[in-house]
Amino acid sequence: MHVLIIGAAGMIGRKLAGAIARSGKLGASSVAGLTLADTVRPEAPSGFSGEVACLAVDISDPRAAPQLLAGRPDVIIHLAAIVSGEAEQDFDKGYRINLDGTRYLFDAVRHLSGAQGYCPRLVFASSIAVFGTPLPDEIDDTFMPAPLTSYGAQKAIGELLLQDYSRRGFFDGLAIRLPTVCIRPGLPNKAASGFFSAILREPLAGKPAILPVPDTVRHWHASPRAAAGFLSHAATMDTSPVGHRRVLNMPGVSATVAEQIEALRGIAGDRAVALIRSEPDQAVMDIVSSWPRGFAAERALKLGFRAESSFDEIIRIHIEDEMGGKL
Amino acid sequence: MHVLIIGAAGMIGRKLAGAIARSGKLGASSVAGLTLADTVRPEAPSGFSGEVACLAVDISDPRAAPQLLAGRPDVIIHLAAIVSGEAEQDFDKGYRINLDGTRYLFDAVRHLSGAQGYCPRLVFASSIAVFGTPLPDEIDDTFMPAPLTSYGAQKAIGELLLQDYSRRGFFDGLAIRLPTVCIRPGLPNKAASGFFSAILREPLAGKPAILPVPDTVRHWHASPRAAAGFLSHAATMDTSPVGHRRVLNMPGVSATVAEQIEALRGIAGDRAVALIRSEPDQAVMDIVSSWPRGFAAERALKLGFRAESSFDEIIRIHIEDEMGGKL
Repeated sequence: MHVLIIGAAGMIGRKLAGAIARSGKLGASSVAGLTLADTVRPEAPSGFSGEVACLAVDISDPRAAPQLLAGRPDVIIHLAAIVSGEAEQDFDKGYRINLDGTRYLFDAVRHLSGAQGYCPRLVFASSIAVFGTPLPDEIDDTFMPAPLTSYGAQKAIGELLLQDYSRRGFFDGLAIRLPTVCIRPGLPNKAASGFFSAILREPLAGKPAILPVPDTVRHWHASPRAAAGFLSHAATMDTSPVGHRRVLNMPGVSATVAEQIEALRGIAGDRAVALIRSEPDQAVMDIVSSWPRGFAAERALKLGFRAESSFDEIIRIHIEDEMGGKL
Repeated sequence: MHVLIIGAAGMIGRKLAGAIARSGKLGASSVAGLTLADTVRPEAPSGFSGEVACLAVDISDPRAAPQLLAGRPDVIIHLAAIVSGEAEQDFDKGYRINLDGTRYLFDAVRHLSGAQGYCPRLVFASSIAVFGTPLPDEIDDTFMPAPLTSYGAQKAIGELLLQDYSRRGFFDGLAIRLPTVCIRPGLPNKAASGFFSAILREPLAGKPAILPVPDTVRHWHASPRAAAGFLSHAATMDTSPVGHRRVLNMPGVSATVAEQIEALRGIAGDRAVALIRSEPDQAVMDIVSSWPRGFAAERALKLGFRAESSFDEIIRIHIEDEMGGKL
C-alpha cells in the first residue's frame, strides 16, 4: 500500500508517519511507500524500510495535487490547513489553502478516477470548529454545522465536497471531525485552545502554567495517539457500512478544566497542581465559551473509532508517549 | 432602493420582478431601480415607473459580478442556479455556476464592502435539497444538511459561504431554503418534482395528468406567491434578531399526494380528480422517497415568514394568480 500524507510536518502528521514507519503498517495493511508533503519539506521518519518521498508543496497551486498523486497512492490523508487564528486574520489565505487547496486535491483525484479503476481512500481531517453556538451539552450525529470562524466554514465546505465526490465515486472519502487534541507535546503556543494542554504538560514537567478560563469550562478532548488512531482507522476500515453520510464526529472525553486538574492531581500530586496559576483572560474565555462541550459520537463508536475513556488515560498516554514513561 | 435580481428570467424571479413592478415596492420599501440579470436577457416587467436594466450574463465569468454591482444595489437576490437534474448530469457545469458563480458574486461584494459603507442585503435562494435520508418526519432548525445531489451540495456550500461572509460584515446575508414550489405554472416539465404541480394544474385546466408515485408520498410545498413573499421578506426584514445563523428553513404545507388530490376534489370536483391517471415510475419514486416530508420551521415563522396553511389555499392561489380567478 502507498500512503500519501498532506500536512505531514504537523504534530498529528508526524505522529502518524512515525507510527507507520515503526510498524510498517497502517491499520492491518502493510505500507510499501510513503509520500510526505507539507509547505516545509517533512523529515523522513526513522525506521521505515519502504520507499519514502518527502516533498515541499503549496496545495493552493493547482499543479501541486497532480504531482502528489503521481504514484497513485492507495490512501490519501489530507491534514493540511491554515489554522483557525490565521484563517481568521487572513481571509484570502484561509480560503486559498483550506478551500481551494482542498478542492484542487479532490479534483485531481477526480480527474484520475475511472482511469485504471483508481479510487483511493481519502481521509480529510475536519474539526469540531464546524459547530457554533448555541450548542446542546451533547452534540448528536445529526446536529448541523454553523461555524463561527472562517476556518470552521472552510472545513464544513470540505466535508460537503468530500461527501459529494464520494457519492459520485471519484474517491472513497471519510471526513473525521477531530476533538481538541490534548495533551499537545512541544512548547506552549498562542492558540486559544493551547491552555488545555499547557495546564497539564507544563506542571507534569515541573513548570508553571497559566489558566485563562474558569475551571468550570467543559470541552471535548482526545490524545494525539487517539487522533493518529482515528486517521489510521479511517484510512483502512471497511467503508461499506458508512453509507452516504461520510462525515463523522470522533469520540473523545468530555471534561471540565476542574476534572482535568483533578486527574493531574491524582497522577502528579498537589505540587504539580500548585504550578497552575489562574489568570483570567476575557478574550480567551469569549472564544472558548462558544466551543462544543461534548458529543454523542454514536456513529463513529459503532464504526470502530476509539478514544480514551477518562482524562487520567489522556495524561498517562502523554507520560508514555512524550516523557519516556516516567514523571 | 435599488434591487438586483440574478436569475430573474426564472419562474420565481419573474413573479418577484412582476410584483415589484406593479407595486413599486419591495416589502415596505420603494424601489427606484431594478437590475434584472439571467443567462438570457430577462424581459422588463410592465408597469414599473423606476429605472430598469435587463442584462444577459454568465455568472461563472468572474467579470460578470462586478458589472452587476456597478449600480451598488441595496438588495441582491441571487436565484441563479443550474437545477438539480442538470447539475447531476454535468458535474463541472454545476460546480462552475452554482459554486464558483456564487463565490464570484460574494467576493465581488466583499471587494466593494467597506468602500462608502457598502454592505447590501444579500438573499440566497437555497433549497430543501440540502437534506438527505434518513430524515425525521419533521425536520427541525438544527438538523444537518447531508445532500444526495451535487445541486444540494452546492447550495449547502453557498449557505456556508453566505454565513461566513455575513459574519465578517461583507454583506448582510440570508439564505432561505425554499420548499417545492407548487403549483408551478406553465407546461409540464421533466423535473422529478414536476408531477406535484401537474396533477393539480392540468386537471384544473381540464387536462389529464400522470401520477408516478403512490398517493401516500408526503412532501413540503409552498405556492409561487409564498416563495416570492419569502424573498421579499428576506430582502427587507430587520436582520438584527437573526444572529449568526443566517440559513432558514422556510415554512410550507406538509401534505400527502392523497391530501393534494382531496383538496383538488373539494375545489374542482370528481371530474377533475378523474383526470389523474396513476402510472407508477420507479425512478421517480426512488428520487422522491429521499425528499423531506415536513419541517418545524420555527425560526422562520418567528422571524415573520409566512406560507399557506393548507393545500386548499395553495390551489386557490393558483386559480387567482394563474387562471384569472376562475375555473
